[in-house]
Amino acid sequence: MINIKIVIDAFGGDYAPTNVIKSAIEIKKELPEIEIIFAGNEKMLKNAASNLKLNISAFEILNAKNHISPEHSPTEILKEKSESSMAVGLKALNQEKIDAFITAGSTGALAVGASFFNSKIKGVKRAALCPTIPSSNGKFLLVDAGANLQCREDILFQFAIMGNVYAKKIFKIEKPKIGLANVGIEPKKGLLQYKETFKMLNNCKSLNFIGNVEARYIPLGVCDVVVSDGLCGNMILKTMEGTAKFLMKSFKEAYSLNFKTKLAAALLKKQHKKLKEKLDYKNYGGAIFLGINKPLIKAHGNSSYETLKKAIKQAVYCVKQNIVGEISNNININ
Amino acid sequence: MINIKIVIDAFGGDYAPTNVIKSAIEIKKELPEIEIIFAGNEKMLKNAASNLKLNISAFEILNAKNHISPEHSPTEILKEKSESSMAVGLKALNQEKIDAFITAGSTGALAVGASFFNSKIKGVKRAALCPTIPSSNGKFLLVDAGANLQCREDILFQFAIMGNVYAKKIFKIEKPKIGLANVGIEPKKGLLQYKETFKMLNNCKSLNFIGNVEARYIPLGVCDVVVSDGLCGNMILKTMEGTAKFLMKSFKEAYSLNFKTKLAAALLKKQHKKLKEKLDYKNYGGAIFLGINKPLIKAHGNSSYETLKKAIKQAVYCVKQNIVGEISNNININ
Repeated sequence: MINIKIVIDAFGGDYAPTNVIKSAIEIKKELPEIEIIFAGNEKMLKNAASNLKLNISAFEILNAKNHISPEHSPTEILKEKSESSMAVGLKALNQEKIDAFITAGSTGALAVGASFFNSKIKGVKRAALCPTIPSSNGKFLLVDAGANLQCREDILFQFAIMGNVYAKKIFKIEKPKIGLANVGIEPKKGLLQYKETFKMLNNCKSLNFIGNVEARYIPLGVCDVVVSDGLCGNMILKTMEGTAKFLMKSFKEAYSLNFKTKLAAALLKKQHKKLKEKLDYKNYGGAIFLGINKPLIKAHGNSSYETLKKAIKQAVYCVKQNIVGEISNNININ
Repeated sequence: MINIKIVIDAFGGDYAPTNVIKSAIEIKKELPEIEIIFAGNEKMLKNAASNLKLNISAFEILNAKNHISPEHSPTEILKEKSESSMAVGLKALNQEKIDAFITAGSTGALAVGASFFNSKIKGVKRAALCPTIPSSNGKFLLVDAGANLQCREDILFQFAIMGNVYAKKIFKIEKPKIGLANVGIEPKKGLLQYKETFKMLNNCKSLNFIGNVEARYIPLGVCDVVVSDGLCGNMILKTMEGTAKFLMKSFKEAYSLNFKTKLAAALLKKQHKKLKEKLDYKNYGGAIFLGINKPLIKAHGNSSYETLKKAIKQAVYCVKQNIVGEISNNININ
């Protein structure tokens, strides 16, 4: 049996370290063969566990001085916060024995830290932040959600290669449909680099490239992998979030209007729960940084311990499926 | 009484010319003082009216050779389609007696045509396509939705000035909240030109600039005017459309599941209609091209005659409120 060692940032996210401790204890019951290692201030962590009356003596701790929060500037991870739990975790990933790192901490700091402390897969030009997002007919992988605001065509092309590997190996789709986010479907639409990317993707025999996709079709699930620069990706991801919130709020208001609507809401309770579940991107764990030479997962800041458990399982699955090795192979033949 | 003359593209959009003819006849009943002029092939238009048993003898027709469709390349409006109904309408707008032009035809062709055939307001660097979009607490104006994919800071600054005038005069908001679409709220987020725009807007005393807005808050209505380059604007607009479709579809599926859910749907019928109405951006007429020296309105391709009537009223209101003059004044003092 492979002994998989996963480091988790004990002080990343809104509910840390409580949710991190709980997720580690729970996952050990389900997957005893997985070794979870905390990155965080040892004293604070032990105190927190003791207050929660939880026993963490079975877990290794990589001691950290402090932790970095979203209110800190991302670049502080290189200076004042270079011994924070996130920095310690990222550095640990360079050790041969560590297989993956998970944090629910600041995305900005993580992007800066990963590019400074960690190596990319040989041949990969830029690492991309890739959340799995629910769509009308399932889910899709967004490559990139904001790590690289502007990208040349060779970088966007690599995003497609990496996304394709992930969708194949993790989503278990034989020929993932790859779309390029653009302002129109015609090959000559958009910025110069989009036109060039279109040509490169269209010429690549090993990809199932379906062409440019307009943002209005992305939530409807026209493709399994959406290739985008971080600027457009960020707009797509967050507009989806905001619009879903707007509509759910509107429905909620409509339901609470009078006796009739309240009755209807009661009748629909089960369906609503299902829909809410469907819309919850946290079901898919976290967003993976594709291109880094070990699985590196960014869980949502407000992750519960259940969500963190999913992120841990995602990391384990990425290790078992050898995502990094597969990306390496595919980058170097294309 | 001012005699307002409005030209409408009789052959733009999915239901042309039927919906155009009907909208003109209907608007004449409501606003007899408004003169509607058709741009389109006279023979075809008269045939269509005769088939519909509608009398259009009271309307002037600006004869056109043909019309341009979304499947044509936008630049054809300068060549093969330079005598199309849209081109004829745009050229007519240069005449002193014409006050506004409305088309439900191809957005791409309109952007090309307007920049070639029409003058911008003196001092305006780029015209922006500005749809009014429903939000959780009302509506907002998006400046720009795709006419200018990339914009320098001086252009984005002018977008704010123009959007501010429109929101004041048309939305009747005293101090419109202006937000800059960006990947984060901090002043130093995003592309270089966003950082520069932030500074310019922040220094502008005459604007109620609320700062950078992340796309997740835009559908919730944090501001009245969203300033954006056309690339991000296009992503925001279309992702909102697509996500709303995804959710409405999901609700519809949930409602039709069994007897209980169907009963609930029946109880919620009225609320749903209201919500659908709220989400329908067509209630706001069309998207205005701000910066052109006459009101120029792009109605949605699938506009019904009622939607076109709204677009006509919007054009009339823009003329009466002297949007062009107000923009001119504001551009030249800033």
